[in-house]
Amino acid sequence: MQRYFINNDLHTEEFELPEELYHHVMTVMRAKVHTKFEVVGPDQQVKVVELTQVTPNAARARVIKDLKQNVELPLNVTILCGISKADKAEKIVQKGTEMGASKFIFFNSERSVARWDEKKAPKKLSRLQKIARGAAEQAHRQIIPELNFCPSLSQALAQTSNASYRLAAYEESAKAGEKSKLAQLLQEAKKHMTADKKQEIAGFFGPEGGFSPEESDLFGQQEVLQVGLGPRIMRAETAPLYLLAAISFSLELE
Amino acid sequence: MQRYFINNDLHTEEFELPEELYHHVMTVMRAKVHTKFEVVGPDQQVKVVELTQVTPNAARARVIKDLKQNVELPLNVTILCGISKADKAEKIVQKGTEMGASKFIFFNSERSVARWDEKKAPKKLSRLQKIARGAAEQAHRQIIPELNFCPSLSQALAQTSNASYRLAAYEESAKAGEKSKLAQLLQEAKKHMTADKKQEIAGFFGPEGGFSPEESDLFGQQEVLQVGLGPRIMRAETAPLYLLAAISFSLELE
Repeated sequence: MQRYFINNDLHTEEFELPEELYHHVMTVMRAKVHTKFEVVGPDQQVKVVELTQVTPNAARARVIKDLKQNVELPLNVTILCGISKADKAEKIVQKGTEMGASKFIFFNSERSVARWDEKKAPKKLSRLQKIARGAAEQAHRQIIPELNFCPSLSQALAQTSNASYRLAAYEESAKAGEKSKLAQLLQEAKKHMTADKKQEIAGFFGPEGGFSPEESDLFGQQEVLQVGLGPRIMRAETAPLYLLAAISFSLELE
Repeated sequence: MQRYFINNDLHTEEFELPEELYHHVMTVMRAKVHTKFEVVGPDQQVKVVELTQVTPNAARARVIKDLKQNVELPLNVTILCGISKADKAEKIVQKGTEMGASKFIFFNSERSVARWDEKKAPKKLSRLQKIARGAAEQAHRQIIPELNFCPSLSQALAQTSNASYRLAAYEESAKAGEKSKLAQLLQEAKKHMTADKKQEIAGFFGPEGGFSPEESDLFGQQEVLQVGLGPRIMRAETAPLYLLAAISFSLELE
């Protein structure tokens, strides 16, 4: 069933569709009276609703079921990526949203060939935000991941200073045969999971050329764990997916 | 360092570059005498070689180091996908190769909107094989994954009858909250890992619309385990990556 995010929580049984939703439901879904779809508000509650009335400019729907769903990862994962070339950011956001990320931060990394500046960033972020929304609807998420930009790695690090766990995918670490740091970190996170407050994991990923030795030093100084993600070399847009899948497997399925 | 696959094992210290490799090394890498790169033969041995002589039509290189590397997954994973629209097969092969798959089989699934026939398949496979080679070189794999086509799911099932483990990603299973079958299967696989012979895992994935109830029945009859891959809905090209990352995390890092 098609899912949509709405800006306000549903407090009534029947409601008028917000304009953007009306537009999508009518033109893309070609909905009629009795068409059903799902809506999620900022409270993350998923409700099945049914169209009750359609006019040329507006439509009304009523709540027919409260799904009481919980499909979000048991902790919040922020994916921080050094800016890569071409449409890699779009791929990271699309697939990372499907796999459960709750936030993406893009930053200019030392080896970033393409860079964003404060002027270019808002347009990029707004496009990525649309991709995140579409992917979240398709993946039946309960939140749309947040998007953010930092001009440098040190600013990205500052944004994650409150995270419970911080790690960086470091190729050299994988080459050296480092095998168990990620598993240990996830075991630790599993032990400390509680129902009332979600922990936060921040994962840093380099651009195409990886992190520089100076950036690696910065991770060391700030106690960001440098972990290997297996012995193969993954592209910049693939490594974040490995982390998200490992987190889901380890905390949701094991 | 750039890596290339060659068709014959290296038995001598010095050798003439095969034509295709010569072409790539000279035009893409703009190599000169003393340029170094890696070559892998069918024996999966990775060697660092250095150009010793370059003429307008040929070049010679000599082995300077045997890397004694092993970056392949501890078992062979075959990814079997119902044929999807557009360039999804290419994405699956590219990213799945980075994540360690050893074979891909594409099959016409009941809900496949686009279908391949025996006439169209060789051209598709030959294009995918090139993508697999490029991705394997970039990911520093020791093998190029095999590519194959089956006209139907039952033929794809027949091709995997010798696999140690067979599983199918089934959305209904994830929706029903099924959580631990994949973890149990990988625990089992871990217990039976031996140095002398690799086990085989075959993972089946549906096209955009997922598997039909009839296909699900077929999995049941053939004792293919239907497993959930977490509570979110992943696109056809994303789910195989989840499986590969889970296998790597569970068997290489944990």
